[in-house]
Amino acid sequence: MPGYPALPEGIAYGGDYNPEQWPQEVWHEDVRLMREAGVNLVSLGIFNWGLIEPAEGVYDFDRLDRIIGLLHSAGIMVNLATPTASPPVWFRNRHPGSRLVDASGRVVAGGSRHGFCPSSPAYAAASTRIAGKLAARYGDHPAVAMWHVHNEYGWANAECHCRASAEAFRAWLRERYGDVDTLNAAWGTTFWGLTYGSFEEVEPPGVAPPGQLTALRLDYARFSVEEHLACFRREREAIRRHSDRPVTTNFMIPNCKPMDYWRWAGEVDVVSNDHYLDAARADNHIELAMAADLTRAVAAGEPWMLMEHSTGAVNWQPRNLAKRPGEMRRNSLAHVARGSDAVMFFQWRASRHGAEKFHSAMVPHAGTDSGVWRDVVGLGADLAALSGVRGSRVEAEVALVWDWESYWALELEWRPSVDLRFRERIEAYYEALWREHVTVDFVHPDADLSRYRLVVAPSSYLLTGEAAKNLHRYVESGGHLLVSYFSGIVDACDNVHPGPYPGALRDVLGLWVEEFHPLPENGTVALDGPGASGRIWSERVRLAGARAVRSFATGPDAGHPAVTRHELGAGTAWYVATALDPAPDAAGRNGDDLRALLAPVLDRAGVSRPAGLPDTLELVRRGAFLFLLNHGDAPVAVEGIEGAALLGAGPAAGTVTVPAGGVAVVERA
Amino acid sequence: MPGYPALPEGIAYGGDYNPEQWPQEVWHEDVRLMREAGVNLVSLGIFNWGLIEPAEGVYDFDRLDRIIGLLHSAGIMVNLATPTASPPVWFRNRHPGSRLVDASGRVVAGGSRHGFCPSSPAYAAASTRIAGKLAARYGDHPAVAMWHVHNEYGWANAECHCRASAEAFRAWLRERYGDVDTLNAAWGTTFWGLTYGSFEEVEPPGVAPPGQLTALRLDYARFSVEEHLACFRREREAIRRHSDRPVTTNFMIPNCKPMDYWRWAGEVDVVSNDHYLDAARADNHIELAMAADLTRAVAAGEPWMLMEHSTGAVNWQPRNLAKRPGEMRRNSLAHVARGSDAVMFFQWRASRHGAEKFHSAMVPHAGTDSGVWRDVVGLGADLAALSGVRGSRVEAEVALVWDWESYWALELEWRPSVDLRFRERIEAYYEALWREHVTVDFVHPDADLSRYRLVVAPSSYLLTGEAAKNLHRYVESGGHLLVSYFSGIVDACDNVHPGPYPGALRDVLGLWVEEFHPLPENGTVALDGPGASGRIWSERVRLAGARAVRSFATGPDAGHPAVTRHELGAGTAWYVATALDPAPDAAGRNGDDLRALLAPVLDRAGVSRPAGLPDTLELVRRGAFLFLLNHGDAPVAVEGIEGAALLGAGPAAGTVTVPAGGVAVVERA
Amino acid sequence: MPGYPALPEGIAYGGDYNPEQWPQEVWHEDVRLMREAGVNLVSLGIFNWGLIEPAEGVYDFDRLDRIIGLLHSAGIMVNLATPTASPPVWFRNRHPGSRLVDASGRVVAGGSRHGFCPSSPAYAAASTRIAGKLAARYGDHPAVAMWHVHNEYGWANAECHCRASAEAFRAWLRERYGDVDTLNAAWGTTFWGLTYGSFEEVEPPGVAPPGQLTALRLDYARFSVEEHLACFRREREAIRRHSDRPVTTNFMIPNCKPMDYWRWAGEVDVVSNDHYLDAARADNHIELAMAADLTRAVAAGEPWMLMEHSTGAVNWQPRNLAKRPGEMRRNSLAHVARGSDAVMFFQWRASRHGAEKFHSAMVPHAGTDSGVWRDVVGLGADLAALSGVRGSRVEAEVALVWDWESYWALELEWRPSVDLRFRERIEAYYEALWREHVTVDFVHPDADLSRYRLVVAPSSYLLTGEAAKNLHRYVESGGHLLVSYFSGIVDACDNVHPGPYPGALRDVLGLWVEEFHPLPENGTVALDGPGASGRIWSERVRLAGARAVRSFATGPDAGHPAVTRHELGAGTAWYVATALDPAPDAAGRNGDDLRALLAPVLDRAGVSRPAGLPDTLELVRRGAFLFLLNHGDAPVAVEGIEGAALLGAGPAAGTVTVPAGGVAVVERA
Repeated sequence: MPGYPALPEGIAYGGDYNPEQWPQEVWHEDVRLMREAGVNLVSLGIFNWGLIEPAEGVYDFDRLDRIIGLLHSAGIMVNLATPTASPPVWFRNRHPGSRLVDASGRVVAGGSRHGFCPSSPAYAAASTRIAGKLAARYGDHPAVAMWHVHNEYGWANAECHCRASAEAFRAWLRERYGDVDTLNAAWGTTFWGLTYGSFEEVEPPGVAPPGQLTALRLDYARFSVEEHLACFRREREAIRRHSDRPVTTNFMIPNCKPMDYWRWAGEVDVVSNDHYLDAARADNHIELAMAADLTRAVAAGEPWMLMEHSTGAVNWQPRNLAKRPGEMRRNSLAHVARGSDAVMFFQWRASRHGAEKFHSAMVPHAGTDSGVWRDVVGLGADLAALSGVRGSRVEAEVALVWDWESYWALELEWRPSVDLRFRERIEAYYEALWREHVTVDFVHPDADLSRYRLVVAPSSYLLTGEAAKNLHRYVESGGHLLVSYFSGIVDACDNVHPGPYPGALRDVLGLWVEEFHPLPENGTVALDGPGASGRIWSERVRLAGARAVRSFATGPDAGHPAVTRHELGAGTAWYVATALDPAPDAAGRNGDDLRALLAPVLDRAGVSRPAGLPDTLELVRRGAFLFLLNHGDAPVAVEGIEGAALLGAGPAAGTVTVPAGGVAVVERA
Repeated sequence: MPGYPALPEGIAYGGDYNPEQWPQEVWHEDVRLMREAGVNLVSLGIFNWGLIEPAEGVYDFDRLDRIIGLLHSAGIMVNLATPTASPPVWFRNRHPGSRLVDASGRVVAGGSRHGFCPSSPAYAAASTRIAGKLAARYGDHPAVAMWHVHNEYGWANAECHCRASAEAFRAWLRERYGDVDTLNAAWGTTFWGLTYGSFEEVEPPGVAPPGQLTALRLDYARFSVEEHLACFRREREAIRRHSDRPVTTNFMIPNCKPMDYWRWAGEVDVVSNDHYLDAARADNHIELAMAADLTRAVAAGEPWMLMEHSTGAVNWQPRNLAKRPGEMRRNSLAHVARGSDAVMFFQWRASRHGAEKFHSAMVPHAGTDSGVWRDVVGLGADLAALSGVRGSRVEAEVALVWDWESYWALELEWRPSVDLRFRERIEAYYEALWREHVTVDFVHPDADLSRYRLVVAPSSYLLTGEAAKNLHRYVESGGHLLVSYFSGIVDACDNVHPGPYPGALRDVLGLWVEEFHPLPENGTVALDGPGASGRIWSERVRLAGARAVRSFATGPDAGHPAVTRHELGAGTAWYVATALDPAPDAAGRNGDDLRALLAPVLDRAGVSRPAGLPDTLELVRRGAFLFLLNHGDAPVAVEGIEGAALLGAGPAAGTVTVPAGGVAVVERA
Repeated sequence: MPGYPALPEGIAYGGDYNPEQWPQEVWHEDVRLMREAGVNLVSLGIFNWGLIEPAEGVYDFDRLDRIIGLLHSAGIMVNLATPTASPPVWFRNRHPGSRLVDASGRVVAGGSRHGFCPSSPAYAAASTRIAGKLAARYGDHPAVAMWHVHNEYGWANAECHCRASAEAFRAWLRERYGDVDTLNAAWGTTFWGLTYGSFEEVEPPGVAPPGQLTALRLDYARFSVEEHLACFRREREAIRRHSDRPVTTNFMIPNCKPMDYWRWAGEVDVVSNDHYLDAARADNHIELAMAADLTRAVAAGEPWMLMEHSTGAVNWQPRNLAKRPGEMRRNSLAHVARGSDAVMFFQWRASRHGAEKFHSAMVPHAGTDSGVWRDVVGLGADLAALSGVRGSRVEAEVALVWDWESYWALELEWRPSVDLRFRERIEAYYEALWREHVTVDFVHPDADLSRYRLVVAPSSYLLTGEAAKNLHRYVESGGHLLVSYFSGIVDACDNVHPGPYPGALRDVLGLWVEEFHPLPENGTVALDGPGASGRIWSERVRLAGARAVRSFATGPDAGHPAVTRHELGAGTAWYVATALDPAPDAAGRNGDDLRALLAPVLDRAGVSRPAGLPDTLELVRRGAFLFLLNHGDAPVAVEGIEGAALLGAGPAAGTVTVPAGGVAVVERA
């Protein structure tokens, strides 16, 4: 079921809708306000399991029937949820074996959501049954545009450590490895003599003395993703027996580390994502852009849906800052610019009860005499003006390598330095490119890279031999590759590739590393030439085909290469042996060394980008549409633009002026 | 049994006495020294259960008989304890089901005190039995002045999570709500579909995925208080069957957050309290004053007893600083000034064994050739001079609203900002008033407020509709009310009051709040006019009857109201929408904005206070007695004082000079 | 079996060797490289249990036979390990009762080493059996030089809290105390009425309400050491039935707090030790020297073996810094200087698998074209040049008192200040003496002290009456004693010695302490005279025979003694009542007050030390050999040296010049 058929036309606009928390008179006001705001889709029933199945096998769809009917009569489509992220209280009590057990063996308490084991047979049965019931009842209802299975798989129960999970894990290992000798070889269990005599001997990881087998941990992470996927597949198939509407589940890219969304990618009919700003972070609009680009990658470049974000503050951060004027609009349109065909919120109406009552909403506690409501109405009009954007695609010349398995592996126990964090380097390179106005795709290291002028691998610690060959072929065929330190170190089971570091990348980079020299906390090293300063890492690079572009000027590797370039076949492979920064930090320390480093790399690779624009202007092309988002405090005039503005004024004489904090969207003539 | 009949006359003076830790020859020295110091009351037997009931049902009162006899013959009265805070080792072993279970399901280990479940039937039986045995034996002994039941209820076992507790909780809920639909409605369980089908389905809260039902947590806190109260009542009734002496138990106001002492207030014959300084806190004499005022409130204005404080360092803080010269005396007399008719210490003689051996005592390890002992003797003489103070009452014109339920609710998961702490605002307002030399009462929000000129509600996040009506009536009838931000937000089960914030207080304040704007960590906003700076909070206030007194000059609400005043009926209601400070912080940041704000409020309300005195002078009137405590480094001359000094010199020509660090007490002529 | 008979001659050189992780072709390369580097001893089989006993009672020694044969044919001796630190996976599964249980009752997960209970009968049987099997097979193999039992006892399983441990603890208590009344008296259980009715009632300590009996905790620590010792003894005796080669186990002095190595000292035929630098610590060469001196003390002054250290970075610290040029060599030779007859590394060849793959090795991942390998070869040559050093002894004039029981007791709950840390003061005094070029021995407080000119007791919080008498006799007989604050406070069960502090040392010091005055966080007090500044502690010293040498100039004890001296019999006892520092801290705060204080003490005691040398030069005399290690950045010329240089140049005209970062070793003519 290709593409995005959820709605007849235009950008989807709406939010999570929980009418069960309100008396019926509020429902009528809700529908009136939805129409006022231009809402055309709501996500319904995400947390109503306890209400529609009040006791095991007893169903009550009366309220849901009425709500769907009301929405239908108002022309509002429904993204109908299965409520399986929050099993009813009776489920937990009747099936105590289904309760989530944490890594130290504690059974978690009730009174919240997500407290179930993803490998529980009782959960499998109950969740499939309720999904089937809903599909049978509403599967061909004209108001039902699509299905929203579950909610945020793995949010709080990514891994369970109960007996059922252990049994399922052993079965999964048997399937993966066939025989225990293969497992022993793959995991390197000669280390500490931890050889398994049979699959029956394998226990899940958990709180153990330091040094637990890292391969065991990695495979438990892989297994756990598969268990959640199996939960999803069961519900999806139960739905498909009764309904031909597309099925999705809302991802949390990139803020749910345990979920390997590359594995989820092919399973949904349309990719949807939840994204929330980290309020304490000054550059959270850049993190948002990265999230959107990564979501588009998971969607294989197809349009996707922003399923949740917020009109203002969330409720689960230490200090839940509200959004500043214009920020919600810029956030929403940035997602659209980067491929979303939907702008959905958690939540339609602010709740009075429970844990999320201080989370913002489209209808706040304050009601409609409020800036939030006026912005919601305004955004509805913006999206209507952008309906033609739907279905168009973003194209990029640069790709960043992202692999959840490398994310997990790099952050296991006992790496060379705690400052080695997967996202640290990814975000540094992403930010440098963002500030250069270069739109990027994210790619799995096994992906076809031939369409890209430049591929950047900032955090490819775990890299299989196959993936390394893929990068090698890419460069030999004329590609440009940029690799950051501590990449290509281990294989799929966290074994060091044989020989000197970086085992998987020595050939393509034309060098090897004699010794790592992690820096002390807050330590820096200077590079030769003007000003550049590295953090976190230094190492002794030995050239074997590559040539030094920059060298360390201070520190343990002073006089030795810091940045290298290797001509290989028709292409070029660059290597950077320390952490350069894309922008000064909050204290004004370090500079934009990474941007300075990237400029010649981009030039050599022939990556186009506009010149002369401030690095607070976000500029993204989606199909025929150019999005200009001004995150700065002053208006910005952009020249050489032809076409018609869908949002904003102009262009006049080829120039579009984007007001401070504003957005312009121009359709190519 | 009204009032305070523990002793025939004068201020009670003494401490916890643990002779069982010492050989008999030390007892005689103890009694000699008690007489030297003027000790007239000792708390006896608090931790001797394992000694007087060495095996289940086997009793040995010989040592206790001899001790009581010895004290009696020396004219020292006994505050006889039931030893139930530290069950014997055999109890724990014979009744393993009685062991405390923590929130993650761990059974706590032995070898300490308080390791029992307050809902344990075995504990109920054993504790009642030993209390009855003691009462039967000593209930009419002439040395026994009163009963000291248990020790610091809830100190380490405020909540238990065992099966017996769960069962008791369900019974308590049945009693409170009658039927499960009422519970569901009260708790808002439509949220996340967490509807209960029956009371049997309710589990206690515990370690769960984030977002556990806050109403469940609140009610478990309420339930837990009731369980401890039931323990107390059982012992009290066992005693009353044999003894007519007053019964107390030592509270820990305000430093035992889980104990709602409003609920305990009516249960004891005389309120007693333990208070310890936080050594790291420069203003701990102000915290002491607050504790004493709150204790007096729990005692309904009646005299109360300071049951424990310290002569010097405690042993359980990170760095246990000793008291400075004069500090112990000022501490003791401040408690008397604010209503205590007793000055008791933990402990009489410093222990050689176990966990508290580095806690100070009246007789330190160093013995009597020590400053501590000389101060103890001096204090005995001071208290003898103040015997006439006994029974007199403190009267206040200003009340501060304090509600433990609001304390709990405000600090549950997922509030708008972690900087919202119940005591933060209470202490800010208390300190501002203290520095203005204004004595305050604390009140429950349901209390009769008619006697006060001004009522201040700094942290009334949880406020029932009834309580809001009470405040409304108070203002309409001519009262002055001052409310701080984030008050009146939720009802008794943490549901947001309907409509715009602050739902319970919109009418009385004449305003509503459009959106909260918590500030980033360490963020500030300026107010218009000279110098004022707010922390933690800003919000968009919309006037609806009130008028703006001050406005924000910077931040997300620049140009909008920050302080408002509403004329309502015969009274006035003020509102403050940010955190102003009563004094500069340790780094000299922020000023005394809160004092500047309060001055016109106090003036308008007609609250009297002396002028021209330094804000390090504590000045309290108790009945006919004026207490002047100089916490500063220079002598202070106070004019306009008539009467006779009981402590200190003067007055001469109407002026009393209080030496640096000294105390004067003047009885009105 | 006296002395150190592991090798026929010379200094042992080599490392942990794990050929089971590599294919056989690598073994041949290993042996070739070992010969190139001068390796003469390898530790073999430390973690191969799962490979040599792949199922319970099934043995496979084929690989081990071949390896030992290969090493033997190359003339490399074997330090043959019992593999009992890492039981096989099958053991854990077949004997679930053997699993380690932590203090909160959690059974730890598998997949790591050390996950067993030291009191487990199943472990006792299995570990003894495999040790016996190995000894029977290889006990008289000519390549086997010695036995390496287990690995780092107590590293992660120092204490277990399972039922078997509880039972063993009760048996141990019965043995120690005979009857429960004796236990009650020793533990001071009258405190909180925690009297035991029988040994059966005793539970191990664990997570409990604050204030758990400290004597219970102390005795559980003692018991736990004995349980590990019993594990060792069982294996040792199983070996001795078949082999006459010396038996050792590798200690972790001083970085394994739970292991009381004084108790282990007499149990091994030769003391061996593992030592790793704390990379974040600028002065880690001083910590290394302390570790070596303490190891020598545990070896009763006999030569010992450095069994593990690293060629470069480790893998388990937050930031695993590599060693700087020359550092590995200086580290190695410093151990030899201070008594080691071996320089062994973890590990021979860097592993590709599991938790330690980023730990440095003699053969790094980079192979032999590396600085590390060149340094390894160079060190082999150095050690060959030093073969005559073997067997010689270090003599010291100064002793520092070290007692693991005091270490434990001082850091239990509820001491006067969290800044009171056992090693803090030990290290301060050690560093001051090191910088004065004074070599020290460590001694147990019960040891014969008569050979020392000066004994320093910086952290003798726990000091028995017997030990105090020992110190008293030492001083009376002419010794010089220097004691730091908070020493001599409690007896063996953490009961305060009767009377004023410091109960055990009042007489010898000629003073008593009226009150402790711990300082606030980061607080300081000045001493009279030039510049000195104390941290952490002040107290009111009362003289009773001693005289004040320095006084406090500020703080709570201004004007009272800070440093005292007591002439007693033929000797002198000094006392220091605050924390003086041996060198400025990283921020340049505080100075070298402790060195200034020590100078007159050393002079008076007649302790010789060289003059005019920088305090970065380490100078140690071992038998006829003078070791000079230059930790500074400039060459140092040392005059007055006669003899022949074994390492380095000279002496020329009595002067040896040690290059920056270099080492010289001179044999006395």
